[in-house]
Amino acid sequence: MSPGGPEFSPFVQGYWRLAEWGMSSAELLSFISQHVAHGITTVDHAPVYGDPSCESLFGAALKLDPSLRNRLEIVSKCGIENPPEGGGAGAVAYYDSSKGAIIASVEGSLSRLGGDHLDVLLVHRCDFLMQADEVAEAFVALKASGKVRHFGVSNFSPSQFSLLQSRLDAPLVTNQVEINPVNFGVVSDGTLDQLQEGRVRPMAWSCLAGGEIFQGQSAQMIRLRATLEVLREELGAESIDQVIFAWIMQMPSHPVPILGSGNIARVTAALGALDLNLSREQWYRLWVASKGHGVP
Amino acid sequence: MSPGGPEFSPFVQGYWRLAEWGMSSAELLSFISQHVAHGITTVDHAPVYGDPSCESLFGAALKLDPSLRNRLEIVSKCGIENPPEGGGAGAVAYYDSSKGAIIASVEGSLSRLGGDHLDVLLVHRCDFLMQADEVAEAFVALKASGKVRHFGVSNFSPSQFSLLQSRLDAPLVTNQVEINPVNFGVVSDGTLDQLQEGRVRPMAWSCLAGGEIFQGQSAQMIRLRATLEVLREELGAESIDQVIFAWIMQMPSHPVPILGSGNIARVTAALGALDLNLSREQWYRLWVASKGHGVP
Amino acid sequence: MSPGGPEFSPFVQGYWRLAEWGMSSAELLSFISQHVAHGITTVDHAPVYGDPSCESLFGAALKLDPSLRNRLEIVSKCGIENPPEGGGAGAVAYYDSSKGAIIASVEGSLSRLGGDHLDVLLVHRCDFLMQADEVAEAFVALKASGKVRHFGVSNFSPSQFSLLQSRLDAPLVTNQVEINPVNFGVVSDGTLDQLQEGRVRPMAWSCLAGGEIFQGQSAQMIRLRATLEVLREELGAESIDQVIFAWIMQMPSHPVPILGSGNIARVTAALGALDLNLSREQWYRLWVASKGHGVP
Repeated sequence: MSPGGPEFSPFVQGYWRLAEWGMSSAELLSFISQHVAHGITTVDHAPVYGDPSCESLFGAALKLDPSLRNRLEIVSKCGIENPPEGGGAGAVAYYDSSKGAIIASVEGSLSRLGGDHLDVLLVHRCDFLMQADEVAEAFVALKASGKVRHFGVSNFSPSQFSLLQSRLDAPLVTNQVEINPVNFGVVSDGTLDQLQEGRVRPMAWSCLAGGEIFQGQSAQMIRLRATLEVLREELGAESIDQVIFAWIMQMPSHPVPILGSGNIARVTAALGALDLNLSREQWYRLWVASKGHGVP
Repeated sequence: MSPGGPEFSPFVQGYWRLAEWGMSSAELLSFISQHVAHGITTVDHAPVYGDPSCESLFGAALKLDPSLRNRLEIVSKCGIENPPEGGGAGAVAYYDSSKGAIIASVEGSLSRLGGDHLDVLLVHRCDFLMQADEVAEAFVALKASGKVRHFGVSNFSPSQFSLLQSRLDAPLVTNQVEINPVNFGVVSDGTLDQLQEGRVRPMAWSCLAGGEIFQGQSAQMIRLRATLEVLREELGAESIDQVIFAWIMQMPSHPVPILGSGNIARVTAALGALDLNLSREQWYRLWVASKGHGVP
Repeated sequence: MSPGGPEFSPFVQGYWRLAEWGMSSAELLSFISQHVAHGITTVDHAPVYGDPSCESLFGAALKLDPSLRNRLEIVSKCGIENPPEGGGAGAVAYYDSSKGAIIASVEGSLSRLGGDHLDVLLVHRCDFLMQADEVAEAFVALKASGKVRHFGVSNFSPSQFSLLQSRLDAPLVTNQVEINPVNFGVVSDGTLDQLQEGRVRPMAWSCLAGGEIFQGQSAQMIRLRATLEVLREELGAESIDQVIFAWIMQMPSHPVPILGSGNIARVTAALGALDLNLSREQWYRLWVASKGHGVP
């Protein structure tokens, strides 16, 4: 993922909707085993995903077959806090990247997931109160204790990324950002340029734009669907999902898409995107469909 | 304020409205002596503030007790020029950061303020005609002559700051920027990230948003006042001014607020902010009140 | 133009509209000879300019007097591709900065222009699929083969410029960007700051805003024309063109304007701008006329 960083599978299985899937631990174990068997070994979690937490549900499944842990790269996050209990009506969710909060968050993740370490810890959002020195201290402590092997960020702007990186000995291993044919501001706002410059691969969240591409009725969505359907035919792809994933993976910073489905058939179908190769004209055709105008 | 830079008091007394205060020199001397006695020893001026100039009025007061000068850190600025006399109806105010203009500006400030040096000189606004090499030459000459001890900027974007810094041997000691709960674009546009990365502290102007927070009738102002009032109670603060100053000072680049009042009671009351400590949830509650939505 | 880079004439003759000028090869040869005789020795082309291509027409004229080539610095570009033939109704123009496309583009330019080298090759637009390593490989190969002497870019954002520069041994020699009194976003968005920091001079395209300044009826255009006319009188300039070119050349990154006219009288008249010197107040007066408000 970055110089000296971890290796990820070509896709990451995301678990932010796990609580909605209604799987028993045995069903979840089967799901995990199947995507691992298909080569998707990296999984994405966060303490704030789901109720009950996706980490708890995932940990319960892993308990049924602890040998599975060593075949996984587990990514989790830190830094978003729910409104404090008893905080009153006006209390808000907030960010906390203090050393204590980061370490406590990792310990919470490990207690829910089981196992003794996270492969990668991401700072979930850039805390406007982020003391970069303090985050660096937390990373050093977590690395020394063996609780976390690698560190990255999520949704960081270029200046936030540069600031935190300036305090670290090792490169941040990723910046997990939104990339899809509806929202790809990171293509032009410097975020992906910075990552390519540092040879750091982004993780891409919301690759299918939360389903909006499939159902939206705006002119943009109608254009996108029509163009995706044409590209699907031209490429001989099985689905427009595959076309979208291929479109994202062809970006020169080599984003790693996060899959959000709990349907194993849909998950494994995504792998078909690895065999697709959009021509540059095809890639830009989708860009044009999204923007509604040609390239400058 | 920065590596190798000067030390400032926790607050800076701003004098841009001095001409409006209607103080005699003796009254002003008393005002200065009082805030110095309370530990506010750094003062902020600019050649373009006031008519008559705040520098002239301040200099006249200092003449009554020259010993006071050595207890002060005097910040002044350069680079904004009024429309030239006889310039005709269309003549405009403009920026000038030529070597000659910078040196002449400092000499003018010293003649008005008295004394033989400024502690800090700031380039007031980034001149779009700024020849960074020429500014650097002016700084070198002013340092060599003893007329200015440290150099910084005001209202510079990150790229402007980086450009000027690239020509200097010593770090710029500050970037004086607007920070208040209404306008805090510098929190997210990279300005404060860059300063934290370089361990440079901003000076914060317009901390109370020109009073808009106290009187404004927009939905945003009403939300802000209500939240500030709740926070004031929770924190046991004496005023919402104190809450605002504490909110600004807790930013991780450690901004130094500039006070704008000529009322010594209000000035010294601001010092109470030093004893306040907003929780992260409280800090973000004011962020949410300003934005009108929760954190992403 | 940059440390170790080529020297350009004070103006660049642009040929993007050459096909519209209706010149025979002999007439074009005469035009070229005349602007060269006036010291304008740098010419700007691109494979995508004109139908027939400006490169073909220019090459045909040079064939009539091959000795002229050595008195010219020829700039051309690469990276924009027309919709593929037979690409169907939906096919789009796109960017291609693959190694093969860059080398093929240069070979096409050389076959049209004649001669064995380009003095400068610019990447015309930043390809969102730009693999910076691959562009660098293409540059190395083109330099080694003697086909291109220097490399630069056009319309690159600061992060795109920084990314590509990070893979190159020599500084990019220019960033060709739009600069005129209507559109000068590069003055404030960091583009020109970055160039000044690296001591790289921009080339300025569309200096006269495509003629909009002369004919536009918006409030902004009316203000601009009125102010330009006043400045023309104050400066004793022959035309407002001259005032505009002088305004652009006084920017501290030292932009080199590209001329777009095929009228030799108008081309040589532009040279009068080299003798104009706007005061800073005059420079900002045009800024104010464009913005519709004074400097902050």
